[in-house]
Amino acid sequence: MSDALRFVDGNLDRFRAELYDFLEIPSISAKSEHDGDTRAAADWFADKLGSAGLTTETVETEGHPIVVGESRTAGPDAPTVLIYGHYDVQPPEPLELWTSPPFEPTERDGRIYARGSADDKGQLYMHVKALEAFHATGTPLPINVVVVAEGEEEVGSPNLVPFVQAQAERLACDVVLISDTGMYAKGIPSVGFSLRGLAYFELHVHGADSDLHSGEYGGAVANPVNALARIIASIHDDEGRIAIEGFYDDVIEWDAATRDTIAALPHSDESFARDLAVTELSGEAGYGTLERLWIRPTCDVCGVLGGYTGEGAKTVLPNHAMAKVSFRLVPDQNPDRVKELFEAHLARVTPPGVSVELHELHGGRPWKASVDGPEFEAASEALEEAFGARPVPMGGGGSIPIVVEFEEILDATALLVGFSLPGCNLHAPDEWLPIENYEKGIGALVRLYAKLGG
Amino acid sequence: MSDALRFVDGNLDRFRAELYDFLEIPSISAKSEHDGDTRAAADWFADKLGSAGLTTETVETEGHPIVVGESRTAGPDAPTVLIYGHYDVQPPEPLELWTSPPFEPTERDGRIYARGSADDKGQLYMHVKALEAFHATGTPLPINVVVVAEGEEEVGSPNLVPFVQAQAERLACDVVLISDTGMYAKGIPSVGFSLRGLAYFELHVHGADSDLHSGEYGGAVANPVNALARIIASIHDDEGRIAIEGFYDDVIEWDAATRDTIAALPHSDESFARDLAVTELSGEAGYGTLERLWIRPTCDVCGVLGGYTGEGAKTVLPNHAMAKVSFRLVPDQNPDRVKELFEAHLARVTPPGVSVELHELHGGRPWKASVDGPEFEAASEALEEAFGARPVPMGGGGSIPIVVEFEEILDATALLVGFSLPGCNLHAPDEWLPIENYEKGIGALVRLYAKLGG
Repeated sequence: MSDALRFVDGNLDRFRAELYDFLEIPSISAKSEHDGDTRAAADWFADKLGSAGLTTETVETEGHPIVVGESRTAGPDAPTVLIYGHYDVQPPEPLELWTSPPFEPTERDGRIYARGSADDKGQLYMHVKALEAFHATGTPLPINVVVVAEGEEEVGSPNLVPFVQAQAERLACDVVLISDTGMYAKGIPSVGFSLRGLAYFELHVHGADSDLHSGEYGGAVANPVNALARIIASIHDDEGRIAIEGFYDDVIEWDAATRDTIAALPHSDESFARDLAVTELSGEAGYGTLERLWIRPTCDVCGVLGGYTGEGAKTVLPNHAMAKVSFRLVPDQNPDRVKELFEAHLARVTPPGVSVELHELHGGRPWKASVDGPEFEAASEALEEAFGARPVPMGGGGSIPIVVEFEEILDATALLVGFSLPGCNLHAPDEWLPIENYEKGIGALVRLYAKLGG
Repeated sequence: MSDALRFVDGNLDRFRAELYDFLEIPSISAKSEHDGDTRAAADWFADKLGSAGLTTETVETEGHPIVVGESRTAGPDAPTVLIYGHYDVQPPEPLELWTSPPFEPTERDGRIYARGSADDKGQLYMHVKALEAFHATGTPLPINVVVVAEGEEEVGSPNLVPFVQAQAERLACDVVLISDTGMYAKGIPSVGFSLRGLAYFELHVHGADSDLHSGEYGGAVANPVNALARIIASIHDDEGRIAIEGFYDDVIEWDAATRDTIAALPHSDESFARDLAVTELSGEAGYGTLERLWIRPTCDVCGVLGGYTGEGAKTVLPNHAMAKVSFRLVPDQNPDRVKELFEAHLARVTPPGVSVELHELHGGRPWKASVDGPEFEAASEALEEAFGARPVPMGGGGSIPIVVEFEEILDATALLVGFSLPGCNLHAPDEWLPIENYEKGIGALVRLYAKLGG
């Protein structure tokens, strides 16, 4: 392994230059005018995977292709690790807010600024370079590896689960290793112990058959915007808890050890609030900020629209209002169950004179790691050796629904080892990845492969 | 007078054709790209007023002009009646909901469909034709008349009060006659006894300095859309009353006679609800539908906007939300006082972690008629003769703030005699005016001028 680590150290400049080539390809999966670029990114990635010693295949789907790389040299007795990542990126808009162009990787203050640097090209490519380090130095890879790189993560991965189901035998593995999250802070590496799930709805409130004059009808006819506001307000109680009956039935109480670990993490509410320019934080009573973000469910309305929203004072009593209502879920909540509970809640709280309509737009289950398993420990050790600091277990407020799917379909253990940092502007202008994390992270992955191989 | 009435009967087709020319001009005061059309409507109207025997002047303002017509032939001993109306119209959007184009007057089922047919070009033009009937037949007009037609009623009449104040001597009058309201029902003419006032605000809720990822931050950072919903919901209690402290302090209790009169009016909640296609009516507990519409204050949110409102599921925690919050006021409430009370309410109910900003967009005081005066009786008689049915006193749910201003500045009595019908789609697609009311109404106005002249 030391040969491989020395190889990494001796090739960091090239590794960075190659990543920049990858980042220059605007593989925006959501935009059909970039379909050629997305394809080009898949081909570029498959080529590099081949150079790292893997046999590769580009699997066609109804959307963007899935690149699969395989190395079975470790033999049937060695564990198999599936490395999952994605080569597609979010749209870069609004372009005017980027300091340097999104697809011209630029180094500033020790960071690589580019769309996809953190999410997820940079992190995915670290694995390719770690694999190359074994291959190029003739170091036997102690694990069998299957790389699965999709091009539709940013559009909801519509073709990934069908692919995994269809090719479950080929993809059979012990560990699913994903680098699409972050470290807790600069110099503090992390292994993920949880992700929140998601239940995302579009809620429509309908009133009369047309907009009405607010003077002629106001007071006697229910107003869908007022009604929607009452419905949204009814979702939380005064303590910031979700007031939907049964909502917490499936929420696990986390063990004291986990809560103690979270409480021990370096964190300042004050600087957290200051960074966001809010006067104060808020949330569910009885929980700290990190708990609120990682292990407690929430409801955020992501958008609302109704009536007249242009300039000036139009006196209309609207006949329709809409809200995008999203719930973040925690183990063992299930989006289907949340939908039933929310529907029952709506039946209770919808004011007279309006009707509601609920559409589920997106759902994903939450995830919880086995923090006591050997894989979690292997990752912790590898990161500590590479970064010189003991990793902290870190929860994830966001959702990567595929994690649970991988675990269930392949009967494997998921391991989340990510290298971005808080504030790295995921899905926003000026996305960045620290050069230090990119470089040390490749070494950490070399070590992790070795440890997973026993 | 019989000559004048005969003249009306003999010219109804022409009167309708002329109105259609007026309605074809898209004099949308709110939209600067229609400034030329608004001017054209003023010019067209001034020209017709001149043909009806009045001396006319188009008075420039900082916005759209005010057309003034005068006839002083009745002499100093005759009463002077100021006829007020407006030649501007509401924007026609959403265009796709119009059965026939808004600015192509179309007759269907005995109705004139066009933007402005009811509000207010159609009703304003009825006065011009009634005046023409005296002029064309050489019948002495028994009253002095001042017509004031403004082009900014739909944008809050910003220049009208300054104009009335500046020209108070020229506009001195005994009665201010306004036809910008409706009849109680088909075949049941009405004289207005009240109007609600208005206090219209734009409320902004601000959170973090940028939109955030709802997974990364949801649960620990206040969501302005959720906060706005809580604020809106807090405006009403569970009984449909306004829950703003002090809001009812200035609301008068109406006399038993008025409430009895209202209760005696033919009205069916069932058919009212059916006409609007709502499952049931709703409103303040303890009051009937007509009371809720006429003599009780309300709060309707006319529009709301925040976060992502496009297709699909964007997981954003928005940093801003906005609502157009309108209150309808009743005697003796005052919009300035309501603003103070609302501000105090906001200070109490705004959730932690967000800030609010309140802008007043529009305000107008409520109005209450002297139902025992001779003017009210004159109008009742004129309408009864023209429509063959005894008029009922009718409250107005909407607001014509200028009514109170006219009364106060000119020390005159306001008289509201309107000819539209319930369901005529004021400010909405498919606005209409009954042809029958347009035609009989002109005759009613001829009679009313005569009666007011003694």
